[in-house]
Amino acid sequence: IKRRDYTPAEFTEGILEGNITILSQAVTLVESAKHEHQQVAQEIIERCLPYAGKSVRIGITGVPGAGKSTSIDSFGMHLIKEGRKLAVLAIDPSSERSKGSILGDKTRMEALSREKNAFIRPSPSAGSLGGVARKTRETIVLCEAAGFDTVFVETVGVGQSETAVHSMVDFFLLIQLAGTGDELQGIKRGIMEMADGIIINKADGDNVDKARLAASQFKNALHLFPPAESGWFPKVLTYSGYYNIGIKQIWDMVAEYVRFTKDNGYFDFKRNEQAKYWMYESINETLKDSFYNNKAVTAILSQTENQVLSNEISSFVAAKRMIDTYLANLSGK
Amino acid sequence: IKRRDYTPAEFTEGILEGNITILSQAVTLVESAKHEHQQVAQEIIERCLPYAGKSVRIGITGVPGAGKSTSIDSFGMHLIKEGRKLAVLAIDPSSERSKGSILGDKTRMEALSREKNAFIRPSPSAGSLGGVARKTRETIVLCEAAGFDTVFVETVGVGQSETAVHSMVDFFLLIQLAGTGDELQGIKRGIMEMADGIIINKADGDNVDKARLAASQFKNALHLFPPAESGWFPKVLTYSGYYNIGIKQIWDMVAEYVRFTKDNGYFDFKRNEQAKYWMYESINETLKDSFYNNKAVTAILSQTENQVLSNEISSFVAAKRMIDTYLANLSGK
Repeated sequence: IKRRDYTPAEFTEGILEGNITILSQAVTLVESAKHEHQQVAQEIIERCLPYAGKSVRIGITGVPGAGKSTSIDSFGMHLIKEGRKLAVLAIDPSSERSKGSILGDKTRMEALSREKNAFIRPSPSAGSLGGVARKTRETIVLCEAAGFDTVFVETVGVGQSETAVHSMVDFFLLIQLAGTGDELQGIKRGIMEMADGIIINKADGDNVDKARLAASQFKNALHLFPPAESGWFPKVLTYSGYYNIGIKQIWDMVAEYVRFTKDNGYFDFKRNEQAKYWMYESINETLKDSFYNNKAVTAILSQTENQVLSNEISSFVAAKRMIDTYLANLSGK
Repeated sequence: IKRRDYTPAEFTEGILEGNITILSQAVTLVESAKHEHQQVAQEIIERCLPYAGKSVRIGITGVPGAGKSTSIDSFGMHLIKEGRKLAVLAIDPSSERSKGSILGDKTRMEALSREKNAFIRPSPSAGSLGGVARKTRETIVLCEAAGFDTVFVETVGVGQSETAVHSMVDFFLLIQLAGTGDELQGIKRGIMEMADGIIINKADGDNVDKARLAASQFKNALHLFPPAESGWFPKVLTYSGYYNIGIKQIWDMVAEYVRFTKDNGYFDFKRNEQAKYWMYESINETLKDSFYNNKAVTAILSQTENQVLSNEISSFVAAKRMIDTYLANLSGK
């Protein structure tokens, strides 16, 4: 049977059997920009949805240099040895432009890439964050249907992508390094307050004391933040991804979080909020696309923006004029 | 001449002469929901725009109980004595519902309310945050045209309104109290990272040491944050709004910020970004309003949301169905 000939039902059957080759092909359809691929992909997703949702989804972020790949390799091997099945996905909207930084590249995770219970997929390389995030979210559904009970979503920690990742995972893990100032400059403002756990990497050899100091600084800082909606107080741990130190404690923390939020109902509440978030987010994105790609709008957009910047008209008058133009164009008047 | 008979040109003339009665009447038009008032208001704003923009705009937030009113009274009197003209505006989208909390209420600022160089205006009491924010932003234009060289925009520090305020001011001031835990619970996550200055109130009497300790905790925490785009490192000061201690230092800080960001170009850059932000924000709000008030959409919205929550369809398929419904309805198909 040739790949192109699979029906959505056959794809789904293969995925539910845990067939990795078929899962990979389905993900390729999800990532495809072609209309006919998208139609098949959506049917597969719809068929897989009833079997999805049973994994623990973990977002992992940290600046370049924090040791994300080595850490994920260690984390993953720890989970595999516990008998879990792990999918490692990634969101990196810059991957197409910068080439080098395609997160989730198998070669970065040496041990994990040889494990049959690990599925590693680089970031979809589409243009917009919205598009990339959507594909990753749909891929989670397929991986869960294929029996993966743990899903990592990796991101770079420097752009808008953390918010997207935060909106599709149960637990958000921030990898940090010891030291203040320069080392922290890459992290975007606001990310610290998203974290359910902050883990300080490279707590090994001469660096142990520095890492512990950093951990206590982060702990103090977290006390100044208001409590999270989950009722969970973020933990700060030190570890070494390279030397495999402190890995178990990290996964004990994640397990504790899952128990805690399942008990207080936040786990399911958040999943529902996320499903709604993506629906409304997708509506808003599509509305914006329709507006900003409308020819009548694009014809006056930059001119109107300049009138605002030169104080000729107010922001609100400018907006009203363009909306009127858009709606008139849509209704064919 | 009767109030109703003023032309937009006459309104503008009165405003430019600094006539507070006429300014107040124009702000009332800005806040009015009536179409004919809005038309006059927009014409006044357009005429005032060339004379606006010359003030320093300062956002002030803090939890209830932090002493915002007393602080603003002290800050304002300090500025008035320096020969400045101060407008105190507010954004509190909850003011209509909760009545009691109408920020900017003159009676809360005893000293300031007796000063002719102070213009105090409570929060517009419209429904949505977008609407309230828009009115406040337009009121800033009128106040600036009337010669006010300092504008405070006060907000409650517990909801979405800080982001709106942050997007219309040059400097964002966060009022905090000494102590951890309970006292801080009211502040929304992420606000600390928006602040250009954090000021710890009630640093008087027995409380001085606690306030200083809190200041050093905040300073340490800020060091863990990445630097702001402005290049400005947020300062932490202690003061007493009630006993008038440390007020000058706060305004020296604001003056230093203004000098610093005017020198490095960030001041004007941010103003332009804000003007564009409000234009695009207004467009997006209007698009959403049009969508969510569309009868064909509202007819299927909750049913579709339920299908998403029960995993029958994906968030993205749901979004697509509703958008298709909307566009078909708009174009009359």
